[in-house]
Amino acid sequence: MYHSKILVTLRQSILDPQGKAVEHGVHSLGYDSVRNVRIGKFVELNVDAASREEAEKITREVSEKLLANPVMEDFSITVEEKK
Amino acid sequence: MYHSKILVTLRQSILDPQGKAVEHGVHSLGYDSVRNVRIGKFVELNVDAASREEAEKITREVSEKLLANPVMEDFSITVEEKK
Repeated sequence: MYHSKILVTLRQSILDPQGKAVEHGVHSLGYDSVRNVRIGKFVELNVDAASREEAEKITREVSEKLLANPVMEDFSITVEEKK
Repeated sequence: MYHSKILVTLRQSILDPQGKAVEHGVHSLGYDSVRNVRIGKFVELNVDAASREEAEKITREVSEKLLANPVMEDFSITVEEKK
């Protein structure tokens, strides 16, 4: 059993209105030193695979097909064996 | 200038209907080996602080007050100096 973590982030060239809204909220709390807030997704899942390579392949395919929008988003994955 | 990354995750005891929906989507793509999908938030921000300690303090306070719901969510932060 493997445990995968996927970070999905908006590409730098894409505007992030949700991040802007959070940034305004942060400033209204008095934290003026905080800038460039950007919001992404974090997905965790377990993969029942025979090897780390297979688990990585499945995680990558699922990320490409379902979790990330390739036009607007990048993703990075880490896979660890689960005790 | 420091760059902070915050992962906000639902506590294990809290049901994650969004994760369940994604899991159904993953299964309908044919990836039956994927289980326990859980969705969290990933927030990146810059902090203009004099030291790493100050940047961590600000990041932690912003996470507690605004980014995470302490009743339902946990968060973890990492802070790196930005070149």
